[in-house]
Amino acid sequence: MHSHIEFDAAANILKLLDQRRLPLSEEYTECRTSQEVIEAIRQMSVRGAPAIGVAAAWGCYLAALEVRECDDWRPQFEQHLKNLAAARPTAVNLAWAIKRMAAIAAAQKYLPLKELFAEASKIQSEDLAICHHIGANGASLIADGDTVLTHCNAGALATAGYGTALGVIRAAVDQGKKVRVIADETRPWLQGVRLTAWELQKDNIPISLACDNACALLMSKGLVNLAITGADRIAANGDTANKIGTFGVAIMASYFKIPFYIAAPISTIDLDAKTGSDIPIEQRPQEEVLELAGSRIAPAGVEAINFTFDVTPASLISGIITEAGILRPPYEAAISSIFGHTSHE
Amino acid sequence: MHSHIEFDAAANILKLLDQRRLPLSEEYTECRTSQEVIEAIRQMSVRGAPAIGVAAAWGCYLAALEVRECDDWRPQFEQHLKNLAAARPTAVNLAWAIKRMAAIAAAQKYLPLKELFAEASKIQSEDLAICHHIGANGASLIADGDTVLTHCNAGALATAGYGTALGVIRAAVDQGKKVRVIADETRPWLQGVRLTAWELQKDNIPISLACDNACALLMSKGLVNLAITGADRIAANGDTANKIGTFGVAIMASYFKIPFYIAAPISTIDLDAKTGSDIPIEQRPQEEVLELAGSRIAPAGVEAINFTFDVTPASLISGIITEAGILRPPYEAAISSIFGHTSHE
Repeated sequence: MHSHIEFDAAANILKLLDQRRLPLSEEYTECRTSQEVIEAIRQMSVRGAPAIGVAAAWGCYLAALEVRECDDWRPQFEQHLKNLAAARPTAVNLAWAIKRMAAIAAAQKYLPLKELFAEASKIQSEDLAICHHIGANGASLIADGDTVLTHCNAGALATAGYGTALGVIRAAVDQGKKVRVIADETRPWLQGVRLTAWELQKDNIPISLACDNACALLMSKGLVNLAITGADRIAANGDTANKIGTFGVAIMASYFKIPFYIAAPISTIDLDAKTGSDIPIEQRPQEEVLELAGSRIAPAGVEAINFTFDVTPASLISGIITEAGILRPPYEAAISSIFGHTSHE
Repeated sequence: MHSHIEFDAAANILKLLDQRRLPLSEEYTECRTSQEVIEAIRQMSVRGAPAIGVAAAWGCYLAALEVRECDDWRPQFEQHLKNLAAARPTAVNLAWAIKRMAAIAAAQKYLPLKELFAEASKIQSEDLAICHHIGANGASLIADGDTVLTHCNAGALATAGYGTALGVIRAAVDQGKKVRVIADETRPWLQGVRLTAWELQKDNIPISLACDNACALLMSKGLVNLAITGADRIAANGDTANKIGTFGVAIMASYFKIPFYIAAPISTIDLDAKTGSDIPIEQRPQEEVLELAGSRIAPAGVEAINFTFDVTPASLISGIITEAGILRPPYEAAISSIFGHTSHE
């Protein structure tokens, strides 16, 4: 099986499984320029914070190819990277991956094409390895027979593969545990019903879908043992931006005394954001709410509010599952100790 | 303007504005038999607890017309009423209206057609009047400049007219207050985006739509001053069944210390249900979750959970706005005092 993010080095084309068309059709979007990568990120052919980071790294490489003929390549290359970084505002992995690529170029006088290719490859392969580590670290949180509620898609499709929240579930299943998943539909983009269902079904992991607003009922009936979601950006104090609705799941989990976990690579932590209020929250077109599957559902002239993410306060998070282990409150200390021991600062 | 529930006494046809087709088209479903009323209720051409009660009353009258030629009309009439009562399980107004119609017939030896017609008319006109009383009683809860979040549609379309939750909002607007409404989309049937938006827009009441999962974010940003929803059945202790997602709104309102109110006629209170756990919760076909606007969105073979209602515990309800006033906790006492002074027992 092809990866859903694949760089064709012979043709210099980034091939992205178009996540807007799943599960009804499996088509690839082909990006030949960094601008096409920006469009793919903006229009959500590729989505999920770590996956956006990987795609952006390849976008940087494509940008390098675009400027290779220029004597004065650096300002143009940097402009391309700046444009890439602005593709979407909330997921910090985007900026993080671009920074890594920029550092490779900054270290050289010539345009280091080979090194940039190697770095993008490395970002992609590292992300896959990190997801496996996250899975291994988090699997113990899931007991045999548990049902895990998840929101949006923090799976293989949101990363280089395996997934963060779904990686933890996959690792528990790999340990022989019987695990059921309840996936929130996740309006307006339906990542749960379209993507999480699609990839867990492929892995034969039992999955049931529910509308986002069924969460309280399901928890009240004892049908949910724990909730795990991904993250788009984690502030230094543990406040976590993730798909709109995550905050609600966390509030309800707290009400029902059900553990609520975040699973994310350390690259999702943004030390420049002291708290959640420092995280920019994307707003997308109203039409995403006013239309469904391309059909208008609302009366003409009615307006919609469409924030794409919300911020769950650290106080509602039972633990943050990373490749370096499970962070526990108080997160400020846990996060600074992580950064003391890694090269991610 | 025609009412959305209109009995054509010349032709003996119950005309129901088909709520499945709103807002894109305004078509009427015509019911000539009690069985057609059952289908209209079951398939949700008409929905909303009080509106279902009114439609069922007319269904009883149509049943009477069906059996008028029979010498032994009573057992057949009673069977029709039993079938009507089983159309949907959760809204108690259905059983309540049918009981009123049954009592008219039970009091007579002959089939009292005129009296049944008069009783159905009365149930309809009383419901409209009750909604105006609910509105008048609740309007003081909304301050000038407030934004009210509501879930599903507890409006004119859910009643004989004016609405319960939306009746309170209309009454506040009628008092000259500036009121904004945020309507939850309300998956899977989209009553918020389709019905609440449609009827508030007609009344020029400012409305914004949001996905169900945006609730926590909106409340956290201070964009919601209070939440008001309708009810399908209220237990003797105040526990309230309403559209799936209401429970979540109430939990989030409690988390953010925002008042959460129920607006409903006294006929929604079921003294036979001691607590919420005595209220039967309807489950509807999985396809309602797996499809959107008639298009499949989920992968083939994936299952969905589709409870239509949830039960909000009384502890999360700031008040229950009825035609007899605003009930306040402890609800058990408030409710029994209401029933001590009315004929609804």
